[in-house]
Amino acid sequence: MTTAVPRTAVIVGCGVTGTSVALALTAGGVEVTLVDRDPEAVTEAAALGSGTPWTAAGPPADLVVVATPPSEVVDALHTAQARGLGHVYTDTAGTKEIVSAEAELRGCDLKGYVPGHPLAGPDAPGRAGADATRFAGRPWVLCPYETTPAWALETVAALVELCGAVRLDMTPDAHDRAVAAVLHLPYVVAAVLAANLAGAGPELLRLAGDELSSAVAAAGADPVLGSDLLAHNAGPVADAVDRTVAGLRAVARTLHAGDDTVPVELGLLLELGARGHRALAEEAPRPGTAGRDLPGDR
Amino acid sequence: MTTAVPRTAVIVGCGVTGTSVALALTAGGVEVTLVDRDPEAVTEAAALGSGTPWTAAGPPADLVVVATPPSEVVDALHTAQARGLGHVYTDTAGTKEIVSAEAELRGCDLKGYVPGHPLAGPDAPGRAGADATRFAGRPWVLCPYETTPAWALETVAALVELCGAVRLDMTPDAHDRAVAAVLHLPYVVAAVLAANLAGAGPELLRLAGDELSSAVAAAGADPVLGSDLLAHNAGPVADAVDRTVAGLRAVARTLHAGDDTVPVELGLLLELGARGHRALAEEAPRPGTAGRDLPGDR
Repeated sequence: MTTAVPRTAVIVGCGVTGTSVALALTAGGVEVTLVDRDPEAVTEAAALGSGTPWTAAGPPADLVVVATPPSEVVDALHTAQARGLGHVYTDTAGTKEIVSAEAELRGCDLKGYVPGHPLAGPDAPGRAGADATRFAGRPWVLCPYETTPAWALETVAALVELCGAVRLDMTPDAHDRAVAAVLHLPYVVAAVLAANLAGAGPELLRLAGDELSSAVAAAGADPVLGSDLLAHNAGPVADAVDRTVAGLRAVARTLHAGDDTVPVELGLLLELGARGHRALAEEAPRPGTAGRDLPGDR
Repeated sequence: MTTAVPRTAVIVGCGVTGTSVALALTAGGVEVTLVDRDPEAVTEAAALGSGTPWTAAGPPADLVVVATPPSEVVDALHTAQARGLGHVYTDTAGTKEIVSAEAELRGCDLKGYVPGHPLAGPDAPGRAGADATRFAGRPWVLCPYETTPAWALETVAALVELCGAVRLDMTPDAHDRAVAAVLHLPYVVAAVLAANLAGAGPELLRLAGDELSSAVAAAGADPVLGSDLLAHNAGPVADAVDRTVAGLRAVARTLHAGDDTVPVELGLLLELGARGHRALAEEAPRPGTAGRDLPGDR
């Protein structure tokens, strides 16, 4: 642990992410105070033992974590800095290019702000999934500006370490393209597949097995948070969807043609898919274990 | 149980499906003999306690179950009928339109043949996943011909019951369109998504979580069996892929346009997806439980 470990922290936004960060920091001995525009959210998060309600009386905190939805991050950051809530700031939004550019445009103090994104499992709505170990062993991307001073970066790195996560530094653009591929595209595909089931009769659905349940699993996420996230990463997600459309159209062309070579051509795709499936299984956490019981030293 | 319960059965094809059926029938008191063009497969299936190797010496069996890959079913059925292996025949192929039509064209004896398809979970390659309870509580589709006599249908219905499965009668066309939607489409989509990961670097894959793992889970199936299955259901699968492409292209258009209405338009799709996700969760077995511990009376 570095000497930049925060002694005090303010969590702005008491959803599942903010509350989980608050629980991890509290467990790590940090004195945590909580802010949310919904007073009920603060009360509930405090009741879980994640901290105490923030009051204007205290001194600025060593660290402020903005854990609102992406579209509210810059407003919340700007307000928090204007009120002097702390010395170092970070956020947890799932997209980084727009957030970090807007923070610059809005005139936020960039010396003390390090954009970040902890990659936990799919969010349960509200605080139901809040857990101090939510980020344990999972990647936590930091996107420092070129001008970010070491002292700010070290404080946010200490936050990542306190949460048991694995720090990865990336540019906002590289981050957004990566999460488009591994998070946002699977979500869009699951939603499109699941949308076709909304009107399906029970005689169809009862034939479904693991294949379909797995394929649409991501579609169970909160549509409001989801659309906010996807809209903030529109370009990279659109490109990823385009690539998937091209792949599916190639399969459809092969199937419609119905030549004798169909099994061979499909076999090549399916073999490549099986290879990608193996590559992911070897590199990424298995389903159901993400953010739970992975060793912290991956 | 009806009076049509078979006392003896021959299993043709000792893969995971054939061996699982053999285990269930043996457990139900049926005397089972085993055939496979690979003598080793018979030896291994027999070693699991699923029956004894078939010999030409015995009388015709009450029931013959053809459990080969789809492209070999009609050959195997024709040969088995020519040799007089049994009185009533069924198969377990995952597509039914081509199989049942080809059986008619080839001059198979349709009086004694009832096309069928037990829907278990994804196949483990070989006999590794063989299990007497593999079909317990899962749908087992029968596609009788208009001319199928009651005695043949009752014998195959008794097979379904002995395996603890839930009988559903459908036309071959309705069956093929349904499995295209709930099984084959998710497989194709998973393969296309996973194929894009085959060349991905570890820095991308380590960002992946449950969303991506679930999305590509089905791509882990055997490519050889998979391409055989998809090629046998080319038309319905192509149509299902076309519908998915249309849905994805609409999302891509919205994202590329980048209007202020993006969150609203995406929100509508994601909300519909969440509804479809709920509909499936309410009607279908949960992931990981398929074919295992579901009550037999669903």
